Amino acid sequence: MIPASAAGREWVVEAFGCEPGRLASLSALHALFDAMIAELALHPVAPAQWHRFPEPGGITGMVMLAESHLTVHTFPEHGSACINLFCCTPRASWAWRERLGELLGADDVVVREFARDYVGPVVRVGAGEAR
Amino acid sequence: MIPASAAGREWVVEAFGCEPGRLASLSALHALFDAMIAELALHPVAPAQWHRFPEPGGITGMVMLAESHLTVHTFPEHGSACINLFCCTPRASWAWRERLGELLGADDVVVREFARDYVGPVVRVGAGEAR
Repeated sequence: MIPASAAGREWVVEAFGCEPGRLASLSALHALFDAMIAELALHPVAPAQWHRFPEPGGITGMVMLAESHLTVHTFPEHGSACINLFCCTPRASWAWRERLGELLGADDVVVREFARDYVGPVVRVGAGEAR
Repeated sequence: MIPASAAGREWVVEAFGCEPGRLASLSALHALFDAMIAELALHPVAPAQWHRFPEPGGITGMVMLAESHLTVHTFPEHGSACINLFCCTPRASWAWRERLGELLGADDVVVREFARDYVGPVVRVGAGEAR
C-alpha cells in the first residue's frame, strides 16, 4: 500500500464577483497570500513573484512553497480571480468561499479539489508489493 | 454568449518512470521549459524561478506567462514530475506523452485537461444577456 501521505492535493479555484479594485491592488493580493500562508501553515522557499499587466491591470502572483506552489491570476475587467494551490502532502481545505469573500469581495467561488499521485498509480504499485 | 476565447485551459500532468538524474538536473528542466515555451508559443513575462530541495534533490520551477503560468515539481526518489500549465486562452494541447518521454525519459504520463472560466458561469451570463 502507498501511504496516504504519498498523494498530493490540488485546489483549482475560481472566484467571481470580486471587487475590481482589490484585484488590481498588489497590497490586497499580498494580503491574500499572507493570509493563505499563515492559515494553511504553508512555507515559502523564495519570495513571491508578482507581475502587473497593462490596463485593466490584472495581476499574476506565484510563490514556491516547501509544500509545492500557490498562484493567483486576477481579471479586474471580469471581477474574477483564478487560484491554484498544490500541496504535495494532504491537508485540510481552506474556507475558500468565506475567506475569498472577505479578502477579495468574492460572491461566488467555485472550488475543484483533486488528488495528485506522484508516487505512481496506487493499483500498480500496490499489486507489485503484494506479490 | 460568452466567446469561446473567454475560457482558459489547464493541464495537470503527472509523469512517471522518468530518469532520476534528469529530474535532479536544473539544465534538463531548463530544457523542458524552453521546449514547452517554444513549441506552445508561450510568452514569459519574467525569468523563471527555480528551487532545489535537499537530497534526493527534487526541483521546483515556475514561470509567469502572458498566458498565465507553467510549473514543475520533480521527485527523483519516485521518478516522477508534476506539471501545471494554465493558459487563459484556448490552445492546442502539447504532445505530452511523446515529449515528456523524450525530455525526461517518462514512460507513463497522466494528463488531465479542463476548462477554467474566469468570466463567470456561461449559463448565468448568457441568461442575463438574452433578456
